[in-house]
Order: sequence, then structure tokens, then C-alpha cells
Amino acid sequence: MEAVVRAIETRRERSRQILEEFLRIPSISTDPDHRGDVVRAAEFMAETLREAGLPTVEIHDTPRHPVVYAEWRGRPDAPTILVYGHYDVQPIGDPSEWTSPPFEPRIEEGKIWARGATDDKGQLLTHVLAVEAHLAASRSLPVNVKFLIEGEEEIGSENLEAFVRAHREKLACDALVISDTAMYAPGVPSLCTGLRGIAYFELTLRGPTTDLHSGAFGGAVDNPAMAIAHLLSSLKDRATGRVLIEGFYDDVVEPPEEEKSSWANLPAPEERYLQMTGAPVLYGERGRGLLERIWSRPSLDVNGVWGGFTGEGSMTVLPARASAKISMRLVPNQTPADIAAKTRAHLDRHLPETMVLERFLELHEGRPWTSSLDHPAVQAAFRAIERGFGRTPVPTREGGSIPIVSMLTEALGIPAVMMGLGQHDEGAHGPNEHFDLGSFHAGILSSAHYLHEMQGALTGRGSG
Amino acid sequence: MEAVVRAIETRRERSRQILEEFLRIPSISTDPDHRGDVVRAAEFMAETLREAGLPTVEIHDTPRHPVVYAEWRGRPDAPTILVYGHYDVQPIGDPSEWTSPPFEPRIEEGKIWARGATDDKGQLLTHVLAVEAHLAASRSLPVNVKFLIEGEEEIGSENLEAFVRAHREKLACDALVISDTAMYAPGVPSLCTGLRGIAYFELTLRGPTTDLHSGAFGGAVDNPAMAIAHLLSSLKDRATGRVLIEGFYDDVVEPPEEEKSSWANLPAPEERYLQMTGAPVLYGERGRGLLERIWSRPSLDVNGVWGGFTGEGSMTVLPARASAKISMRLVPNQTPADIAAKTRAHLDRHLPETMVLERFLELHEGRPWTSSLDHPAVQAAFRAIERGFGRTPVPTREGGSIPIVSMLTEALGIPAVMMGLGQHDEGAHGPNEHFDLGSFHAGILSSAHYLHEMQGALTGRGSG
Repeated sequence: MEAVVRAIETRRERSRQILEEFLRIPSISTDPDHRGDVVRAAEFMAETLREAGLPTVEIHDTPRHPVVYAEWRGRPDAPTILVYGHYDVQPIGDPSEWTSPPFEPRIEEGKIWARGATDDKGQLLTHVLAVEAHLAASRSLPVNVKFLIEGEEEIGSENLEAFVRAHREKLACDALVISDTAMYAPGVPSLCTGLRGIAYFELTLRGPTTDLHSGAFGGAVDNPAMAIAHLLSSLKDRATGRVLIEGFYDDVVEPPEEEKSSWANLPAPEERYLQMTGAPVLYGERGRGLLERIWSRPSLDVNGVWGGFTGEGSMTVLPARASAKISMRLVPNQTPADIAAKTRAHLDRHLPETMVLERFLELHEGRPWTSSLDHPAVQAAFRAIERGFGRTPVPTREGGSIPIVSMLTEALGIPAVMMGLGQHDEGAHGPNEHFDLGSFHAGILSSAHYLHEMQGALTGRGSG
Repeated sequence: MEAVVRAIETRRERSRQILEEFLRIPSISTDPDHRGDVVRAAEFMAETLREAGLPTVEIHDTPRHPVVYAEWRGRPDAPTILVYGHYDVQPIGDPSEWTSPPFEPRIEEGKIWARGATDDKGQLLTHVLAVEAHLAASRSLPVNVKFLIEGEEEIGSENLEAFVRAHREKLACDALVISDTAMYAPGVPSLCTGLRGIAYFELTLRGPTTDLHSGAFGGAVDNPAMAIAHLLSSLKDRATGRVLIEGFYDDVVEPPEEEKSSWANLPAPEERYLQMTGAPVLYGERGRGLLERIWSRPSLDVNGVWGGFTGEGSMTVLPARASAKISMRLVPNQTPADIAAKTRAHLDRHLPETMVLERFLELHEGRPWTSSLDHPAVQAAFRAIERGFGRTPVPTREGGSIPIVSMLTEALGIPAVMMGLGQHDEGAHGPNEHFDLGSFHAGILSSAHYLHEMQGALTGRGSG
């Protein structure tokens, strides 16, 4: 490993340049105008894998954005690791909230600032650069490695499942490794053992068939923007913070006591969350601790709401329509399909006779995922992160959703190791996204050590 | 009057062409990009008044959009009529909802289709063309006439009051005439004896200081888009349709029994309102009839709401802010200032500790207005409309607000005659605005008759 670590140190500057180049590509998967950039990001990824020394690199077209696949299978008797990541990024939101252009990476305070820095381009690259260092140092790897890199993670990974099912043999492996989550806190390396699922909906209420004058018709007919306010507020009880959708909590299971008590020993997160969010006070389900609320309790958010006149000034309109995007974060054993049915039933039950539910779209879904602390692939990850960061990692969970984790682990019958390198305040999905360059470097080291630690950790079944 | 009526008939085609030309000017007063068009509309108005034969025509600059003033004062012993109107128009809203371009007038089904057709360019022109017909027929008018035409009606007439106070002597008159409202129904000419006032607000809630990832933070902090839903729904009780702002109804007075009973004799409006609005059912304050709700009861509407991600797809954001525009229609003796104070107090009282009320703007206000059926200037209007339309008009009210009516009647100490020529379903403030060309013609005739009827109706105090 000494030569590998040396190779990583030597390439430090070059690694950062590759990341910068990757971040210059505005690969916003949800936006059709950026289709060309998304393809360019896939090509950049493929080229970087080739330069790292992977002998097989493929770009597979899908109905929307391409999947990049690569492999090194030089050790038929060793275990096979599958690294998953994504090269697409979130939209930028309001450009005026960014202090520098989102696709012109800038280094400041030891961090790199750009859309996609932490989610997921920076984290993904650590594994490519770890493989590159191994191959540079010894022309070989301790285990077989496969890469599966998609361009639709931020829009629900719609085409990945079909790809995985069609290439089950190609993807055969012993463990999945993903870096697309956050550490518990700066300087506290972590291993993530659970993710929440998601169910994301859009709804539109219609009252009148056309926008009306609020003077001539105010008092005559109901107002969809007011009706959607009542409908949205019917979803959650303000006082208890509990979701009011009938049966919403039916399938929720509590996490193992062992995990809950380990969370209780973590540094108290309240002050940090207040700082990260800038919210006046914290808020959530009554009677549950902050980490518990984010990690093992479901939540419901309004992600967007719109209707009527939203420009400058005072248009006196009684709008025809109002819409909202709402999503729930799910925990074991909730399922998106069941929650969708219950949500639809709630809306139908609470819809006033003055309104038509003109649209109800299920935009996005993902099942929750948890893993056991005892699995040898998880234990190897603990050791590797300790080497990479020089500090024992803590077991954590994530409130976010990576729907493909449960999909991949279920489809391929393997455990997953969530080696998160980000921070919660790095602006993933918001403005001014960034990634700590110290974590980038320690992540490359951790990944390199992980390949080494995995060599004897499992009974290898070869590379299929 | 025969020669005048003949002149109006002869000029029928030309009158329509003037209206078309007027409607081609996109004089959207709220939009700074249309500043040049607003000025162009003022100049068009001035030119049309000059061509009509008015000897004095002036354009007065204000801090925003110009006021057009004109007068004919050839009968020192006769009463003086002041005609008020506005040459500005509402924004067009969503262009895709228009079946033809809003500023390319088109004649179809005996109607002219364009933004501003009924509100107020078409209605305003009737009075200019009536004066023109009188002057063409006899080089004289039965009474003195003044025109006061502004370009800020759709944005709150902010600079009109200062203009009126500065030119009180110039504007001295015996009665105000305005055509900017609707007839009770097609074929049912009306005279409007009351208008609701308005108080229009915009508010913004902030929770976190920046948009957050709804996975990483869902369950940790409150969501402004959900909080604004709860706050908006606290303003109105769904079951009773009543506004819940403390003290909101304190100053509301019931209309005279005589007016209420005359409304009860009007053709039942429910079916027509269902057709006009396309709403599944009607809705409003429980225990009050439809006309009563629109004409003599206050209402509250959400005119716009927005927050978070409102584009295509599914951005998983927990937004930092959510905003709404809300407005109340007021009736005697509510005042905008008192309602603003009560609204602000309600919001402060119901604001959760998780949110900051980052903005509370009073965007627009106007006092309610009512007039007596018995006034000679109102009685003259009844006779004139009967001649113009060939049918006895009915007394009605309007749910909308023309804040300048109460301002002008109070500032100048005069009665107002609301000679509405529009229809409620003509799309004022919505898409596909239009104006019936039959009403346009009958309106010109009514206005010409009104000048005649007013000759002996009042003890003239001369033209100041």
C-alpha cells in the first residue's frame, strides 16, 4: 500500500484538476436544454476511466441519459467490488443566490465550489483515482473492480433498473460501494448504514376553468390557491409535526436499539443544524430526537407551490389553478407504492367539492435501505476509512434517498457500503454547493485502502 | 338629439376602427418594459380627444404614467360633467391561454377581442365618441364636459390623487361619469350604485436562510411552503366561507332593504355564474345569497402563491422562502387602513416560531363606494341608458373596486354615475378579454343622451 499512497500524494494536484474539469460540465439531467452537456459528462467520465487504466470502458445508451460502465477483472479468485456513482447534477435554482457561477469551479477555504462538487462528482472521482493509483503503483488491483455510473440519479434513475436487469451477469459482484452521502460532521468520518426512501408527487387543483377577476367573482366561487393551502395543511399537524395521511405510520419500524444508542453518543447535533440551516428554531415530529427524526422517521415536505399571479405588482386575479410538489421521505418498511395510494386516498377524501384534482403525478420514488454493522464488507470499510482519515468512523444514517441502493442490492443480492465523504452544509441541491478538498484526498486514500482490505474479507466468487 | 343619433350611426364603422387602433397599444401599466406603450396610449387618447373636437387637450406628466385631461366649457350656465376612464390595461398572464394575440384585436361573434377591450378602452371611448357626435351635429354640447383619463388604474392609481388635489379647480364639476363596470347580464342594461373597496398585500415567510436538501433536512426544520399553507388557511374557514381575521366584519353595514329587495327580483344568477366561471359549484359566505356575497359582503382571495421548485420535474428542495399575494374586497364601512392593521395583527398572531415574516407589503388599496338611487344625476342616467339600450336599466352593484370613485367623489364633493357597459364574462383581468360591439354602440348612444338629459337635471354651477 505504500507505493499506492505515494502515487496518490504525487497526483494530488492532477486529481484536483480532473475534478475541476468535470465540474465545468453543466450536466443537469432534468433540463432538456442540457442534454448535450449530460452526454459530454458521460464521455468525460469514460475518458477519465480509460486514463485511470481500466481496460474495459463502455458507454451504454438508454432512453434518456447514457450509463457509463468500466471494469478490471484481473484477479479471478478475489472478490469483486462494484462502484456506483452519478455524473448528473441538480438544477441550480435561483442564479442570484450563488456567490460565483455554478459551473466555474473556484477553490476557497480549502474547498472547491461548484454545482455537483459534493453531489456526486467529487465523491465519485475518489474511487476512480484510487484505482488509478493502484494501477500506477503496481499495474494491478487487490480485487476486481467494476464501475456503474449513471446520468439520471437526480431525476429518479428511471432507466437504470432496466439496465441493471439486462446486464445482471456483467454487474455480478460481491459488494457495492457508493460515496454519495455526508459524514456526520467535519472531522468525523462516518459509515452510513441507512437511507430513507422517497415518494414525490405533483398535484394541480382547478376551480374555475379560467382566471377570473377577483373583484367581480370574489365571494362567488372558491379559490384554488386558498383551497390548496387548506389541502396541504391537511397533510400535517403543526402542533405535533406528524403526517396526517391515514395509515402513513402503519409500516414504520423502529431501528435496532444498538444503533439508536450509538446515535445518542454522538456530539449533540442541534446547534450545528441551527447553524447549517439558519432556521429560527428546529422543528419536527414531537417526542423524537433530531437525528432520529432525520435518520429513522418519515417526513413530509412541500417542495414547491405555485398558482395565480407571482410577478411584480398586484394583479387582482382569482386563479383557475394552483399546484404543489410534495414529497415524503420513507423508512423501513414503508413502500412508495403504498404511500402513493394512501396519499391519493387522502387527497380524494379531503378535496372540497369546489375543486377538481386535475393532476396527480407520481414523479419520483425510491425504497428505504438499511444494512447491518456486522457484515465483513462493512467491517472492511470501517478499517479503510480509519486508515484514510486517520480516525475511527462512526455509524450513521442519512435522511436523503438514493433509490438505486435498494434497487441494486436487491437486484444483485449484495450488501452495500455507503462511504460518504460530503458534509450536510455543502449545499447539495441548494446554492453554493462545495466539497472539502481534504475529504476529497482522504476519500481517495480510503477507497484505495478499501480495495486492499477487501482482498481477504470475503470468499470471492470471481468476476462472473 | 335626432341629428346626434344620426351622427353616431354614420360613424359606426369609424368608431370601431378607433377602438381597434387603441387596442393595438399594449399599455400594461405594471410592466416597466411597456413604459413606452403606456405613453403612446396617452398620446393616442389625446389625439382622439382633439379629433373629437375638444378645444383643450392636455397631457400631464406624473411620477409614473401621464394623465390626459380635456374640456369643453361652452355653456357657462349648464352643469358640468366629468368623465373618468383609464387607458392602461392589465398584464396578459399566460399567453398560451389566449386564443389570439392579446394586442391584435379581432372581431368575432359581434365582439372585439383584445386586452383592454372592456377594461377600459372600449367603455371609455363611448363618451369621447358621444361628445364627438354632439359636436359634429351641432358644434355644441348640452352641458360642459371634462375628461380625466389616467394610466395607472390597474396599479392602484397612485399618482391620481395628488393630481386631483393639485387641480381641484380645473376639475370642478357637478357629476362624475364612469363606464368601467359590467351590466347585470347580456341584454340587461344596469346602473351601478356600489363598488367594493380593496386591500391587497404581499407576504413572504422565511424558514431556513437558504434552500436545503429535503432528504438531509426533512424532519429537522419547518418548511415555509407548508407553513404558508397553514397561515393562509388560518385566514378563512372552509366550512362557513367566513374570513377569520379578528374584527374583519366589525364595520360591515348591511345595504338598504330597498336595494336588497330589488336584487331579489333580478333573474336568478346562479346558473349564469356557474357557466361564466366553469367552477364545479359556487362557494362563499354561508347564509348569504350570491349577489349579496359579491355586492355587499367582503371577500378574501389568494391572488398568487409561490415558493420552492416550480419547474418541470422533481427537485428535492426544502425551500428557504414562500410568498403569497392576498387581497380583501371591502364594503362600507370597512377601510383599507383598518383591514391592513387587522391582517398584520392576524399574521403576527398566527406566525409560527419556526418562521420569520420577512416581508409584508401593502401593495394596493381602495375604499368602498355607494350612491343613492334618488340623486337627479343618477335618475338622468337611468333615462339616458333606457334611450341608448331601448330597455329600462336595473340598479346593481359591482364586486370589483375602482378606488378612484370614492377618492374623486370625496375630493370633489360630487355624486358619481357608474354607467357600466361590460359583461362579467368578458375576461377583464383574465385571458381572451373582449367587448360586445352592440354594447359599444348602445353605450355611445346612452352617453350622448346623458349629456342631453343632464342639461336641466341639476342647478348648474358653471364650469369653474
